[in-house]
Amino acid sequence: MTGLKAHRRRVAKGPELSGIRILIFDFDGVMTDNRVLVMEDGKEGVLCNRSDGLGVGMLRAKGFPIVVISTETNPVVSARCKKLKIPCTQGHEDKLAALKDVLDERGFALSEAAYVGNDLNDLPCMRVVGLPIAVADAYPEILAVSKLVTKRPGGFGAVREVTDMFMKHLGSY
Amino acid sequence: MTGLKAHRRRVAKGPELSGIRILIFDFDGVMTDNRVLVMEDGKEGVLCNRSDGLGVGMLRAKGFPIVVISTETNPVVSARCKKLKIPCTQGHEDKLAALKDVLDERGFALSEAAYVGNDLNDLPCMRVVGLPIAVADAYPEILAVSKLVTKRPGGFGAVREVTDMFMKHLGSY
Amino acid sequence: MTGLKAHRRRVAKGPELSGIRILIFDFDGVMTDNRVLVMEDGKEGVLCNRSDGLGVGMLRAKGFPIVVISTETNPVVSARCKKLKIPCTQGHEDKLAALKDVLDERGFALSEAAYVGNDLNDLPCMRVVGLPIAVADAYPEILAVSKLVTKRPGGFGAVREVTDMFMKHLGSY
Amino acid sequence: MTGLKAHRRRVAKGPELSGIRILIFDFDGVMTDNRVLVMEDGKEGVLCNRSDGLGVGMLRAKGFPIVVISTETNPVVSARCKKLKIPCTQGHEDKLAALKDVLDERGFALSEAAYVGNDLNDLPCMRVVGLPIAVADAYPEILAVSKLVTKRPGGFGAVREVTDMFMKHLGSY
Repeated sequence: MTGLKAHRRRVAKGPELSGIRILIFDFDGVMTDNRVLVMEDGKEGVLCNRSDGLGVGMLRAKGFPIVVISTETNPVVSARCKKLKIPCTQGHEDKLAALKDVLDERGFALSEAAYVGNDLNDLPCMRVVGLPIAVADAYPEILAVSKLVTKRPGGFGAVREVTDMFMKHLGSY
Repeated sequence: MTGLKAHRRRVAKGPELSGIRILIFDFDGVMTDNRVLVMEDGKEGVLCNRSDGLGVGMLRAKGFPIVVISTETNPVVSARCKKLKIPCTQGHEDKLAALKDVLDERGFALSEAAYVGNDLNDLPCMRVVGLPIAVADAYPEILAVSKLVTKRPGGFGAVREVTDMFMKHLGSY
Repeated sequence: MTGLKAHRRRVAKGPELSGIRILIFDFDGVMTDNRVLVMEDGKEGVLCNRSDGLGVGMLRAKGFPIVVISTETNPVVSARCKKLKIPCTQGHEDKLAALKDVLDERGFALSEAAYVGNDLNDLPCMRVVGLPIAVADAYPEILAVSKLVTKRPGGFGAVREVTDMFMKHLGSY
Repeated sequence: MTGLKAHRRRVAKGPELSGIRILIFDFDGVMTDNRVLVMEDGKEGVLCNRSDGLGVGMLRAKGFPIVVISTETNPVVSARCKKLKIPCTQGHEDKLAALKDVLDERGFALSEAAYVGNDLNDLPCMRVVGLPIAVADAYPEILAVSKLVTKRPGGFGAVREVTDMFMKHLGSY
């Protein structure tokens, strides 16, 4: 499925979710608006979204596996994931290797994974998973390989759109 | 009152305020833009609005009861409410129970309360109060049960719109 | 000069500047985008604009008096004004009294002052100065009494528009 | 090349890159959205962009020289440039002198430099380099002297647009 028409499809109702058993999120630009607050001492901060958090919490409560994979090794990733009570793995130049490790550990195949990304370093993962999802403001290369595109940009509810879609699929919104 | 037409009504002039004697605000997404700044040490920050603060101060000065109810237990909620000199209650998974406690303590009925919300965890409260109000960027489920919808999104003047409406109703803008 | 047509006038070329000898800025919503970052310990932060700062610096270098008047007593106001090397006076519930003090000290009449504001607490000052200026996103009551309205909102270049206008008037852009 | 038509040209495909051997970025308004977070203790923070960082990293990995020149002496500039692993020089009222120093040290001519700017203090540099580039939200004086204008504003991907353009020119996206 390629082309503009596919990209304009709403995330809300795809049959693409059949067989998907784990949900992987990139961090920056997906769980955040892709910006970073840099303070004078070099400490960083990121802007996340409370409604994304609520959505992750509801899906997690259903027992659906959710994992964050981040290229950066950054305490803000750990801090946010700890708050959301989901595991994260970070510091991977090669996100595809990290993705495979995450899936192997949990006994899932690549075809059983959904991956939500926004930028070039997500490309290798997006190309191999069962359901590649791009946020609305993803880079063109990411949009081109995605099966679904959220209506909202990263950090402004894109994550919630995806978790809502899974909640509906699980029949328990 | 349901449907799009109702949702598009301006907050500014409803007769719905007759009989309303207390104003309850959700915090995240209503008094903030629903985002959260996450720093490296896990400390959080939220973006509030000075004009909202001015409006709350004017209505509070008239002696009109204003309370904040938040699901999260978070020092930012206490910090903001202390600044605004209004009481807050937080850490309630069950916001409806918290709402009933707040009203019981003060001797108000549910029908005498206005409640301003934005997301699913506000739904139980919105369904039972006399005047449920949604911010402009509330989730569809919240818009669907609201009697009034602000023109401005949460954190960008939605609270001020509501306090201005009450000030006009009290005849003392 | 009232009405929509006046409000749509560009700030850039008014003869209204003749006779204006001092420029007064409100802080929140004029030098900032009216939002406040609230951290867990209650410490606050505001978002200012570097191009505003550049404009203030250029006008100040010409010796043109610039003063900030803020209702809030807040270290962020002092911090920003110190950085911009302009005096500020804060903690005034009655901004009109503060304005008169500022003008008296410097020997200027109300008619010689331009005042840039955005919200209701600026109204008493806007009504009496020679040149009341509203930022693009000011409240309706403020727009209604202003002679000029900036094209940009507060915190996003409104201050720079005003300083540029004065620089051009001084013939020394 | 002047005029609106030129300004509307996409950055993505110019032959203007032939002969350009070094890329200079202004900091505020180019690597940031031109805003500054001011905390109560006067400490500042700026909002940068992760995708800009990814683009700078890819171009730097190709060995292409990238330098930041900032008028402000500010630890946030050093902090961000350290993170991006690119040199920065700051505290120059006279950015043109700083630019000449940077080029002299590295043995490049002005005609071999691209310079990305947004505000008046960038004008002297923009006028003399081989390839002056303005961000989408640059001030009119800067747009007027630029050969290319990014589609995205500063802090929201303008830097990435420029680094992508150089990556494509180097034939190694």
